[in-house]
Amino acid sequence: MSTPTIYGVGVGPGAPDLMSVRAARLVGAAKVVAYFRKAGRPGHARRIADGLLPDGVIEEPMDYPVTTEIALDDPAYAATLRDFYEQCVARLAEHIAQGRDVVVLCEGDPFLYGSFMHLHSRLAPRIRVEVVPGISGMAACWTASGTPITYGDDVLCVVPATLGPARLKAALATGDAIVIMKLGRNLPKVRRALDEAGLLDRAIYVERGAMADQVVMPLADKTTDDAPYFSIVLVHGQGRRP
Amino acid sequence: MSTPTIYGVGVGPGAPDLMSVRAARLVGAAKVVAYFRKAGRPGHARRIADGLLPDGVIEEPMDYPVTTEIALDDPAYAATLRDFYEQCVARLAEHIAQGRDVVVLCEGDPFLYGSFMHLHSRLAPRIRVEVVPGISGMAACWTASGTPITYGDDVLCVVPATLGPARLKAALATGDAIVIMKLGRNLPKVRRALDEAGLLDRAIYVERGAMADQVVMPLADKTTDDAPYFSIVLVHGQGRRP
Repeated sequence: MSTPTIYGVGVGPGAPDLMSVRAARLVGAAKVVAYFRKAGRPGHARRIADGLLPDGVIEEPMDYPVTTEIALDDPAYAATLRDFYEQCVARLAEHIAQGRDVVVLCEGDPFLYGSFMHLHSRLAPRIRVEVVPGISGMAACWTASGTPITYGDDVLCVVPATLGPARLKAALATGDAIVIMKLGRNLPKVRRALDEAGLLDRAIYVERGAMADQVVMPLADKTTDDAPYFSIVLVHGQGRRP
Repeated sequence: MSTPTIYGVGVGPGAPDLMSVRAARLVGAAKVVAYFRKAGRPGHARRIADGLLPDGVIEEPMDYPVTTEIALDDPAYAATLRDFYEQCVARLAEHIAQGRDVVVLCEGDPFLYGSFMHLHSRLAPRIRVEVVPGISGMAACWTASGTPITYGDDVLCVVPATLGPARLKAALATGDAIVIMKLGRNLPKVRRALDEAGLLDRAIYVERGAMADQVVMPLADKTTDDAPYFSIVLVHGQGRRP
């Protein structure tokens, strides 16, 4: 008997065949899969794994109680999410108590942003947890752009668009190459910060990188301010190129 | 007849089963594989692909003409590498002219640092090139550390240790989470910069992440200054954790 284990499995950026061989093996043999989703949606990670799940797998969807209804800095936000993660942990721990491994499907890489880490910190002290890294969404986006993100000694800054203007400005000044994530409603602010930093001409907008309907365009050509949460803006490095 | 294609394939950080399903399929069906290596060494990417290569595959090892013998800012360095990349391109283009696809094995992700990009920029204007993203070495290292690299709105800075002290300092000041790559002989300088930034206590040293003999330790506990080029130092973010 092996120790019942929770696997945090990176399923990659979107195309099912960009999952690692190890991830595909774990997903294909899963007894229980768990995944985060917005209530009423299929869940992005679940959709990536769709064709691999075995018949009879037990599914544990974990529906976020809030997305943007409560401000991030409202104490109610943290309290609501804390309760939610505790409930998720209790559900997964019950499978472990019954001797069933659980595969948690994580889009991209489990330890780069994402929600799995909030389960991991609660589970790891008492349950065996294994993490399988994945190809990140940002790697899919720079691949989609057709241009390497970093050269030579470039510094790469990965910046959540949710930050305030001062921190955005500092990150844009430090990075030779920039990835701006979590765009959503923050696109106008990001545009202003890039413009002030003299980087708007080099900024590329990517939506659904690595998926069949990916969109890649100069940000300057994007005439609207609507952007899905998982879209990304890239500024490619210009370092050493022998 | 499909158009002969050069595939830049990310083979991931080291463990063969951390290659993507797409990469494994391309490597397993390759007629020609090319890979960079230090002369006299097997080549890291080649070793990752070892068990997957089909019988009779044609191999095109590309031996770096220099590694650290010429300083990066010496014009002879750029000239020597330029000639080298042109010769590599000519060898690969000859296979394409004969109608044979070529799979270029790239450790980690082809568009995040690495050498493939120097072939890509020369090949893409005239030959069909497809890039398959991979799990990066840094993702394997933060997975090996057992702790997520970024939380919530953390800024992540990826910094080559080859930079001078001023740029290192700026990057350490900007990032909530830090990845310092290309350590090699730069470890003493990195140690000093982390110490001056008050980050030495939080720095984790990782060698050969995702490989069987991986090493993970607090940098403060590492008593020697020898570090392989592909070792990494991490400073984990401490952002929002509901």
